[in-house]
Amino acid sequence: MSPLARAARLRLMAFDVDGVLTDGRLYFGADGEAMKAFHVRDGQGIKLLQAAGIEVALLTARTSPIVARRAQELGIARVWQGQADKWSGLLALCAAVGCAAQDCGYMGDDWPDLPVLTRVGFAAAVADAVPEVKAVAHWVSSCAGGCGAARELAEFVLRAQGRFETLLSQYRDGAHA
Amino acid sequence: MSPLARAARLRLMAFDVDGVLTDGRLYFGADGEAMKAFHVRDGQGIKLLQAAGIEVALLTARTSPIVARRAQELGIARVWQGQADKWSGLLALCAAVGCAAQDCGYMGDDWPDLPVLTRVGFAAAVADAVPEVKAVAHWVSSCAGGCGAARELAEFVLRAQGRFETLLSQYRDGAHA
Amino acid sequence: MSPLARAARLRLMAFDVDGVLTDGRLYFGADGEAMKAFHVRDGQGIKLLQAAGIEVALLTARTSPIVARRAQELGIARVWQGQADKWSGLLALCAAVGCAAQDCGYMGDDWPDLPVLTRVGFAAAVADAVPEVKAVAHWVSSCAGGCGAARELAEFVLRAQGRFETLLSQYRDGAHA
Amino acid sequence: MSPLARAARLRLMAFDVDGVLTDGRLYFGADGEAMKAFHVRDGQGIKLLQAAGIEVALLTARTSPIVARRAQELGIARVWQGQADKWSGLLALCAAVGCAAQDCGYMGDDWPDLPVLTRVGFAAAVADAVPEVKAVAHWVSSCAGGCGAARELAEFVLRAQGRFETLLSQYRDGAHA
Repeated sequence: MSPLARAARLRLMAFDVDGVLTDGRLYFGADGEAMKAFHVRDGQGIKLLQAAGIEVALLTARTSPIVARRAQELGIARVWQGQADKWSGLLALCAAVGCAAQDCGYMGDDWPDLPVLTRVGFAAAVADAVPEVKAVAHWVSSCAGGCGAARELAEFVLRAQGRFETLLSQYRDGAHA
Repeated sequence: MSPLARAARLRLMAFDVDGVLTDGRLYFGADGEAMKAFHVRDGQGIKLLQAAGIEVALLTARTSPIVARRAQELGIARVWQGQADKWSGLLALCAAVGCAAQDCGYMGDDWPDLPVLTRVGFAAAVADAVPEVKAVAHWVSSCAGGCGAARELAEFVLRAQGRFETLLSQYRDGAHA
Repeated sequence: MSPLARAARLRLMAFDVDGVLTDGRLYFGADGEAMKAFHVRDGQGIKLLQAAGIEVALLTARTSPIVARRAQELGIARVWQGQADKWSGLLALCAAVGCAAQDCGYMGDDWPDLPVLTRVGFAAAVADAVPEVKAVAHWVSSCAGGCGAARELAEFVLRAQGRFETLLSQYRDGAHA
Repeated sequence: MSPLARAARLRLMAFDVDGVLTDGRLYFGADGEAMKAFHVRDGQGIKLLQAAGIEVALLTARTSPIVARRAQELGIARVWQGQADKWSGLLALCAAVGCAAQDCGYMGDDWPDLPVLTRVGFAAAVADAVPEVKAVAHWVSSCAGGCGAARELAEFVLRAQGRFETLLSQYRDGAHA
């Protein structure tokens, strides 16, 4: 099946956080992680996926209140943190949403993402993912993590589902506001 | 009308914030957005526009006390935040300043900026704006957002209005201090 | 001896922090250093070294609670800060671990690292190290400090020790979780 | 006089801060500027200048306790902030140090630096300075501000004064610690 066909049937899109929605930098202070840098245009991409009726989720091995806070701002209800075993996490997530793993996408950057990427319907990698991750991905963004990779993925999926032009028109007309 | 002619009649220049005056990074902590990274030479560009008698404004869909704080430091009195409908925001801004939309410029980077960019007199995009925004812009900077794009725009406008050399001479002479 | 042979006998790998595990930026607030930006994939590299039985240590001239906090998260027990005389620090570290300097590696970026780099068994430099450091290194990463240099080193060492494929398989199978 | 000859007689080296010792980013929080990002290898360059007996100073139009804090860590006693009229600031600085403006260097990036750069003995610009600044500089770094420009300048000056190799030897021998 082509990447486009895989993206066309997507109902759930899950993202790793560090290195995918950020550029991988962990900003530490004396009390532990102080900040994460998300990208405004990645956030816009996530809003577009949601507007097209695709469920967006975050699935990450680390745990941080920062992720919960950003998810809240973007209206992402499904945030699964502390999932060292990401494949079990993804199965539970699919069950909660009520979709098959074949209708689920996942975007990752590193070895802990491999068990998920080798099994979901649409496996995506950021441009700066490690080679072993890019090797198993159905689709690789040209942007690096935290710098537009999630936005690029969102547009690829919207085009695959034939929703890109309609959404763009709504924005041109100011109808989304 | 050429971009230069459009810039020559500019009386009000409005900027989007995230992705235009910043590089798009949203620095989140556990309590929400903690910081924005503005650029010192963009700030200098805004001061030059003001010195040339052009009103500078900020017009943004998100709301942040950080934006208000930076605007205060730059002496930008007109800060319109929380404007999901940016075109209505711009019309209100023009009314407040007392100028027509044809004498107003706007610099943006993403889809929510389209209703404004397709209607103002001088539509500008940052180098890393999405293609749909660059396609409707009269002028595109060679610098990315947050890395000199606003400064580059300021210099283009100052040259269009024949003010560049005079201002530069004042700085050379230390007369601005 | 080839760099590969040097990496093959490695039992202890020590890293400088600023400019090696970070990109060299010191984020200062009014009260001094507020943050350091580590990279998530460098952290994963350190975990892989540890999984292969190699002791990981931090050895730095500056002193910061931020370094202690990041080390704690990565399970790095041996953190030697405030070591202006890095060679003495490394000798003490080797004694504590119980290995010879010939079985020890060190990754650095600047002049204060020279006394260590000219004496350890495996001397590594980041891509953006100063020329005098790269000149004495047995191995130079292609990634800059804080942007994957430590991860690249970890993979080089794991391959040298014949552990790369086994560890990768465990990650593919989700057996590491 | 050649740039090398100018650097050879340097007794006082003053740096602008934003855009020269930082990459120009102003990290703003809700209460104003929260952080500046300095570079560890620029700091090392400043220490090398001091070790060679050259007085280092900071001269900046903005005012920030962050600058004072970083200066303290680097042992820079002469910190002149809030100097909108930088030339007057530099003259006062020269008087305090007891040297002529011809024996003084200054590194800048933008228009407010022009009155100083056109008058000091050794005028330096960062690689990403605006063209008008680079046009009057005797020497332009190949590194951008905040990313090694000050270090590169320090090494140029040390070579011009014939101090580079001696200092390097001391570091190689660990004699600086």
